[in-house]
Amino acid sequence: MSLKKQPVTGMKDILPDEMTLRDYLIGVIKETYRSFGFTPMETPCVEHIENLTSKQGGDNEKLIFKILKRGEKLRLADAAGEEDLCDSGLRYDLTLPLTRYYANNAAKLPSPFKALQCGSVWRADRPQKGRYRQFTQCDIDILGEESNLAEIELILAIAKTLKKLVPENDFLVRVNDRKILRAMVAFAGFPAGQEDGVLITLDKMDKIGTDGVRAELIENGASEASADQYLGLLKDLGTDAAAVRSLGEKLGDFLEPGTAEGLAEIMEAVQSVSCGAVKVQFDPTLVRGMGYYTGTIFEVSMEGFGGSVAGGGRYDKMVGKFTGTDVPACGFSIGFERIIAILMDQQYVIPTQKEKVAILLDKKLSAARRTEALQEAEALRAEGKDVLVTKMAKNKKFQREQLSQQGYTVFRDYFEA
Amino acid sequence: MSLKKQPVTGMKDILPDEMTLRDYLIGVIKETYRSFGFTPMETPCVEHIENLTSKQGGDNEKLIFKILKRGEKLRLADAAGEEDLCDSGLRYDLTLPLTRYYANNAAKLPSPFKALQCGSVWRADRPQKGRYRQFTQCDIDILGEESNLAEIELILAIAKTLKKLVPENDFLVRVNDRKILRAMVAFAGFPAGQEDGVLITLDKMDKIGTDGVRAELIENGASEASADQYLGLLKDLGTDAAAVRSLGEKLGDFLEPGTAEGLAEIMEAVQSVSCGAVKVQFDPTLVRGMGYYTGTIFEVSMEGFGGSVAGGGRYDKMVGKFTGTDVPACGFSIGFERIIAILMDQQYVIPTQKEKVAILLDKKLSAARRTEALQEAEALRAEGKDVLVTKMAKNKKFQREQLSQQGYTVFRDYFEA
Repeated sequence: MSLKKQPVTGMKDILPDEMTLRDYLIGVIKETYRSFGFTPMETPCVEHIENLTSKQGGDNEKLIFKILKRGEKLRLADAAGEEDLCDSGLRYDLTLPLTRYYANNAAKLPSPFKALQCGSVWRADRPQKGRYRQFTQCDIDILGEESNLAEIELILAIAKTLKKLVPENDFLVRVNDRKILRAMVAFAGFPAGQEDGVLITLDKMDKIGTDGVRAELIENGASEASADQYLGLLKDLGTDAAAVRSLGEKLGDFLEPGTAEGLAEIMEAVQSVSCGAVKVQFDPTLVRGMGYYTGTIFEVSMEGFGGSVAGGGRYDKMVGKFTGTDVPACGFSIGFERIIAILMDQQYVIPTQKEKVAILLDKKLSAARRTEALQEAEALRAEGKDVLVTKMAKNKKFQREQLSQQGYTVFRDYFEA
Repeated sequence: MSLKKQPVTGMKDILPDEMTLRDYLIGVIKETYRSFGFTPMETPCVEHIENLTSKQGGDNEKLIFKILKRGEKLRLADAAGEEDLCDSGLRYDLTLPLTRYYANNAAKLPSPFKALQCGSVWRADRPQKGRYRQFTQCDIDILGEESNLAEIELILAIAKTLKKLVPENDFLVRVNDRKILRAMVAFAGFPAGQEDGVLITLDKMDKIGTDGVRAELIENGASEASADQYLGLLKDLGTDAAAVRSLGEKLGDFLEPGTAEGLAEIMEAVQSVSCGAVKVQFDPTLVRGMGYYTGTIFEVSMEGFGGSVAGGGRYDKMVGKFTGTDVPACGFSIGFERIIAILMDQQYVIPTQKEKVAILLDKKLSAARRTEALQEAEALRAEGKDVLVTKMAKNKKFQREQLSQQGYTVFRDYFEA
């Protein structure tokens, strides 16, 4: 077998410029998350195949990179299918491993546990421009906090982080609640079994509009009366806290008491605390894909860019799948690769950098003179500078241009004294 | 299949205290490496199986986590063995992927290329205390620099980093050269085919001593004359640059010209530039396992701890395996998990941390009063503090103790006004 120069299909080599930006941004994200009392933690990248295929991950479960059993556990001759060959796989998100981690370590963790994790995840998606099979997620989660203090802090922390990362672009936090979504379906008189299908259709509102949604609902077996009652709830509905309260009143007993008030409070608190800097809107058509959400859901869209740059929600039933006892949980994740793409596109310049000095050595330098150059480099480092020591190129002008592009601003030539 | 709470065999959940330390140390390592002009870069964690099994990785190739093919490429019925089932695997080190990366991207990289990478690697080793199947390596490499300026800078950068990471413990850099090892074997008159075996035996010097090495050499078919001539080279040999030069003279034409002088220069330069702070010794019994080394090799041992905390060497023939054209290359890697183990053991306290404030909310707080607490938290964050907002526990004394252990030093109680 011959060696292959390219990275594996769908994954990428990260060049120095992008990696410098990534390191800087991860630093900003972690520092901001930490300032809200979140503590770093980490799970292995490899997870039990049983956990990865436990129906928590929606479509992502179809995209798992599976890892072959090893040694005598691998019995190829007896294997009837993939499931006999694999015992583990690469994690497709950070949430499922977090709930396993919490189930395994709760006794050693603070309560509530405010978790911060930035790490790689893998999905064997169809390769396409700008989407890679290994990518980074930056998550914060609060486990053990049942009140909406969790949601408020998550939104404030994510909003502050986005503001630091992409200061030039406005963004909007859209919020909804799975309980409101379900109450609306029940209110409109859809039969119980149709709930998932109705939400899948509703999720297309931004693409196919109200008429499209109505047509698809009816095509899928809904009565005209139900479809109209449902869409009637959305008609002329505002996007502020008052709209949430008024929808809550309309839904009456179909909605769990306190749900609308809880969501309205989240919106008001975020707006007050941020002095109006963070825009939060109620979006009754926001659904989000993952099956594990049980309550509030949120998504952040950024001015000038399609799709979302962050998303999350409440998932109160996941830890219980491991332990038998549910633990309230809520999380928010920044789509790091989107942020990188936006900033690379804007040719973003990292604000604070150390002065970079290049010490260039003539090719014929004696060992003693070279040592002097290295000593000067150390002295400059002691002053807080980044110092490169390298050989002088034949084409000095070209070399300086290259180094300037890499951020070097001071040059020192060393010749034999 | 039921869900599993434990991490997969041999891997570990990293708890907040350790993760905080890891984040801090990675920050110090990257900052120090950068101050020597190394630039961050990254390869995917998943690598082509052809590259991972190309005989560059020695015993590590037996420990690969292999990844199953997906979709129609996976044909279980036709598979005769593992190699038909897998197209990729998790990287077992950072060096092999780096050489692939360089081969793939050289035109876009500075020359010489000073690479910095910190990342996870995976080896399906037998699980044992303190050794995990996923662990972190922190590597620096210089590609495209044929002179010993590469070795000097790598040793200086690694030594400075270790000094910052583990300030309390002295360490020793031992150096040797594969060319000297080979010249010694030839000088002693071993037949050409015995070279690898002789070096494997020599590598046991610290465990079985001179007599043990002599006995094993003879047992493996060496003549008494060769064994004695070989061990005679080591007898009364010093550990300084002068010893290297004198061994070089003794080896004469068996050694490539300039090799001994080059190594002696490395030792002298490191000692001069560090003003004697970095101890460098010549160790003619240092072999190191990896097959890819072609010249200088180094290893760092730390006072009070067995094994090495860092290691590396020159590997001038690896890039050529991808491109057909060799590129001089030299690298040094810190064994991050060893450093973590040493510092956790010492109950190391991270030197600089922000002031941590805990704002405790009475359970009966109104939404309006809670917003005031959140506003104060924001104001404190603006002053550079880390601020946790959390509910007051029933047992306030216990809660404060717990928070104090997490580093909180300021407490603010919020009751309804």
